[in-house]
Amino acid sequence: MKTQVLSLLVDNTSGVLSRVAGMFSRRGFNIDSITAGVTADERYTRITIVTSGDGLVLQQIQNQVAKLEDVVSVKKLERDESVTRELIMVKVKASPQDRQAIMSVVDIFRAKVIDVSLDSMIIELTGSRNKLEAFLELMREHDIVELARTGATALSRGAGDAGIED
Amino acid sequence: MKTQVLSLLVDNTSGVLSRVAGMFSRRGFNIDSITAGVTADERYTRITIVTSGDGLVLQQIQNQVAKLEDVVSVKKLERDESVTRELIMVKVKASPQDRQAIMSVVDIFRAKVIDVSLDSMIIELTGSRNKLEAFLELMREHDIVELARTGATALSRGAGDAGIED
Repeated sequence: MKTQVLSLLVDNTSGVLSRVAGMFSRRGFNIDSITAGVTADERYTRITIVTSGDGLVLQQIQNQVAKLEDVVSVKKLERDESVTRELIMVKVKASPQDRQAIMSVVDIFRAKVIDVSLDSMIIELTGSRNKLEAFLELMREHDIVELARTGATALSRGAGDAGIED
Repeated sequence: MKTQVLSLLVDNTSGVLSRVAGMFSRRGFNIDSITAGVTADERYTRITIVTSGDGLVLQQIQNQVAKLEDVVSVKKLERDESVTRELIMVKVKASPQDRQAIMSVVDIFRAKVIDVSLDSMIIELTGSRNKLEAFLELMREHDIVELARTGATALSRGAGDAGIED
């Protein structure tokens, strides 16, 4: 099983996200995560899909995605030629006694506390999947009440543009 | 037109994301953004959907989502009782002469430079939609090559859990 990050440039129409997700579902392809947002040019949306499978399946996925209506371009982002980031928010139980221990983990990861109540905290962190997993590993020592994550988004490194000419 | 943030707890099955997105598409409901990720309990995925419409439509959306297979709970997150965050990555053209001007905007927003080439930079920023829009407004003074955004994810404030009991 390999993991693959696909960056799709698609027309900014209302049904495009569900069309893409629907194709994965119908064909039994795995979606680890999917994120979408309008690009600098409002006619287009960028969809980032993290998917996994063996080499043949990954190639099939790429081919099938490229055939979909409204898909302008599909780019496979290689790990060392791209930056991938995800945002997570974690709500942990934090009694006044726990706070110090939690804060030291927050500092190590340069995370951010964005809400505090008498007995809980919400912490925000962005980074690569590995960094986020390492952070969550430590947070599991405390009591995680809720976890929200965006899924990965990615851009190719350097000045290049995964644009409509591709 | 009002904007509504829905936080869904769903069973962690492969087709659930496309089923949710497909319902929006079939009924002509608007999806501003959708993000998804496994929760602390691996049996469940949290899907955060930002949607817009008039009051009646928003109520319909909430009802329809709740009826879907695999949807365990649906919670409407009110602005002042929740924290909503999004992650964006912006690649801008940056000649050595431009860098100083770009860096001062980066500093003001406490953004992070995550890649630099001879004539470009990739900047990462997280925040509320308003903060991100203000940042992009300033970045548009420079030449935006690519923009990737995750869409919003959100948690309710305080110790509460948008859990399966809801």
